[in-house]
Amino acid sequence: MTDYRVKTLEYGHSQAAAFLKNLQDLVSIPSISTDPDHKDDMLRTANWLADHLRQIGMEHIQIYPTAGHPVVYADWLHAQAETVLIYGHYDVQPVEPLDEWHSGPFTPEVRGENLYGRGTSDMKGQIIAAISAIDSILKQGPLPVNVKFMLEGEEEIGSPHLAAFMQEHTDLLKADIALNPDAGMIAPDLPTIVYGLRGLAYFELRVYGPAHDLHSGIFGGVIHNPAQALCELIAGMHDNQGRVTLPGFYDRVRPLSEQERSELARLPMTDESYLEQTGSPITWGEAGYTSAERTGARPTLEIHGLLSGFTGKGSKTVIPAVAMVKLSSRLVPDQDPKEVYQQLLAYLHANAPKSIRWELIEMQGGKASMSDPNLPATQKLAKALETVWNKKPVYKREGGSIPVVGDMQEILGMDSVLTGFGLPSDNVHAPNEKLHLPTWYSGIDALIHFFYNMGEK
Amino acid sequence: MTDYRVKTLEYGHSQAAAFLKNLQDLVSIPSISTDPDHKDDMLRTANWLADHLRQIGMEHIQIYPTAGHPVVYADWLHAQAETVLIYGHYDVQPVEPLDEWHSGPFTPEVRGENLYGRGTSDMKGQIIAAISAIDSILKQGPLPVNVKFMLEGEEEIGSPHLAAFMQEHTDLLKADIALNPDAGMIAPDLPTIVYGLRGLAYFELRVYGPAHDLHSGIFGGVIHNPAQALCELIAGMHDNQGRVTLPGFYDRVRPLSEQERSELARLPMTDESYLEQTGSPITWGEAGYTSAERTGARPTLEIHGLLSGFTGKGSKTVIPAVAMVKLSSRLVPDQDPKEVYQQLLAYLHANAPKSIRWELIEMQGGKASMSDPNLPATQKLAKALETVWNKKPVYKREGGSIPVVGDMQEILGMDSVLTGFGLPSDNVHAPNEKLHLPTWYSGIDALIHFFYNMGEK
Repeated sequence: MTDYRVKTLEYGHSQAAAFLKNLQDLVSIPSISTDPDHKDDMLRTANWLADHLRQIGMEHIQIYPTAGHPVVYADWLHAQAETVLIYGHYDVQPVEPLDEWHSGPFTPEVRGENLYGRGTSDMKGQIIAAISAIDSILKQGPLPVNVKFMLEGEEEIGSPHLAAFMQEHTDLLKADIALNPDAGMIAPDLPTIVYGLRGLAYFELRVYGPAHDLHSGIFGGVIHNPAQALCELIAGMHDNQGRVTLPGFYDRVRPLSEQERSELARLPMTDESYLEQTGSPITWGEAGYTSAERTGARPTLEIHGLLSGFTGKGSKTVIPAVAMVKLSSRLVPDQDPKEVYQQLLAYLHANAPKSIRWELIEMQGGKASMSDPNLPATQKLAKALETVWNKKPVYKREGGSIPVVGDMQEILGMDSVLTGFGLPSDNVHAPNEKLHLPTWYSGIDALIHFFYNMGEK
Repeated sequence: MTDYRVKTLEYGHSQAAAFLKNLQDLVSIPSISTDPDHKDDMLRTANWLADHLRQIGMEHIQIYPTAGHPVVYADWLHAQAETVLIYGHYDVQPVEPLDEWHSGPFTPEVRGENLYGRGTSDMKGQIIAAISAIDSILKQGPLPVNVKFMLEGEEEIGSPHLAAFMQEHTDLLKADIALNPDAGMIAPDLPTIVYGLRGLAYFELRVYGPAHDLHSGIFGGVIHNPAQALCELIAGMHDNQGRVTLPGFYDRVRPLSEQERSELARLPMTDESYLEQTGSPITWGEAGYTSAERTGARPTLEIHGLLSGFTGKGSKTVIPAVAMVKLSSRLVPDQDPKEVYQQLLAYLHANAPKSIRWELIEMQGGKASMSDPNLPATQKLAKALETVWNKKPVYKREGGSIPVVGDMQEILGMDSVLTGFGLPSDNVHAPNEKLHLPTWYSGIDALIHFFYNMGEK
């Protein structure tokens, strides 16, 4: 290890409190992209990032407006080496149900080894980890590799304007490889490289019955209750083998090879670990597949929200006029979200009874992606992780969706290496989201190694 | 017609504006019994009624506390004649969804021939009709019949404390017949006497999945989504013939006789009229029965509310930890709400998968009731209705539930005659509840005739 690298690591360790303080400042801004009431907070977050990138010595800082929330860009291009485009998103998920949080989602609080707050793990913590690594190196001298940052504000709503932004700025964003730290680790002692991501197709379905709410005594028995009709439609979307019944849903699904199945079987993603993490009584899912396969390599259909009629305290005997479900499908190669929309439409046309009216709204969509685990940059990341954890990383297919990975490949012709220092127990998208700080600090070390490795031949 | 009766009717007509003002004052108090925040409003309403009964000349006014909301009692017992116990409930249903009201639910407003506001039809309007009839008679001289008022504040939550109240006050409440004006008319030109009422068994079912909300990407596919499981359970509660599948649900249902079916077939409750009133695309229900039979003489199972996960604006990719449904069954003779609870429990034990946990909460229950259309008091009411509308009343089985009718029979040994001057289009239990004022004024006339008829041999 060069003196330069050792000094950088030592500097990083000396700044642990300052890095944490930066993360707490960033988490304090409620950048909920899906909620129009937080539009100003989105801009505040972008400005915070731009200022911070300027302070650590990044150049050409620019906040690019889009039709939605802005993109923050910065670069440092003085190395005689390859260029790494660091992707991040500074937006976060909504915080409901608020009363289940033990501390305010936007008043980040350290308890034990964790920092609690919305976005600590997904993914403001990962952005600050990358910035802190760059900061540590720049404090010692020039970067060993050219670096560009592209930090968007719309990942949690499906990045609706990022593809257009990339299409308009292909020269600006040109790089040899993208680093995407929005993936995570399987366990604190298990450095992880993600080579596959699921896609997403998200919908809202509304079922309409009577023109207005009705008295269930006077009218109960003669009209189809839309809440009941909605439940009947939802219930029919899976068969008794846990398979999704939308017509043609599995037609495009790339089958798992025997080799991949045996590799996935080596991951510590056992039924027991899933039960421990979820608190569910037993596992459930598509017949014929293991839990690791079900989350990583098979598509699903999930219900995110149900709303109809009277949901307050006490009882009200009403037949509701409307019932709503939010649902999404996680996709695997080579499914297409547009096709899943058509499949859901076809299911509804075939199964919705004439006794109700319905409306299907397409909310967001993105394809799944797969990358080659043997890319040079991936190997350099693997080496960095191994240096820090003293253990070879595992390779996994991730159940979550990062549509930007596929879009970057398509628009910028650029592969991504995926990592991240969040854990499955981080409660991302849920109350009490947290970040495991020892893992996060190791992650900063690993990124320092990665950037040095990228500068080596 | 005696001069006395004619003078009373004329007096009543002269007081049309004052009677309406009284009703508006009463409707202005938001007496939502199910909402603990309105506890003081319940007491205000009881006091308003006590004061008003005192003003018109009723005696022995008393507000009886119960373990819930109070009962208002008053009487006038100077006639050498039978005693009529007038039942009413001064509580109302909740008002959600509030944004669908065209005027405030508690700022009653006359538009066209209707008075809009929560409780105008169900049943503050009916209480004021009875009080206005008594008031009109007392202004001319003594009542032709003895009268007692029993006005409760918990009908919309299943009258949980009324049975105990009646048991404790059997002497106070002793009477020859009860008048219950909580039923309604089929159409403004069709005076209606109700001889059958459905019962009610109301539940809340909660389905629990993971210990907390989860990221649907990381965990989608390996655990049973509780919102999906709830929908599957709800969907299974009806078969494809619209029949309820709870085990033993129909065992106690009293079959319709051919004579009753042919009588019900004469009512103007056609599919067309139901579609016009509800705005539904087509009717729906239990195979083998007409719409009039489905609402009046057959039991049902209805969904009143669904709630799970993320229901706000935009999208959130969460697997919810819990899903909830409010549901109830309308019962016919000789079903028992306690048995329906056991049947629902049995259904859940048989059908709920091991992949979720569930909890069933019994909210309220009451048996169905039937009365003899040939009771003398019923015939005197029929004559009163015919005098005003110049048309023989129709006899119907009502889809709604008035459990007090069965309880009065059981506890006080007293039959009820049921009528009322609300219409199916009154939006009871729904936004924009209203009362058709011309029908209501005719109703006051009819009640004046009824009390005089009761005083005749």
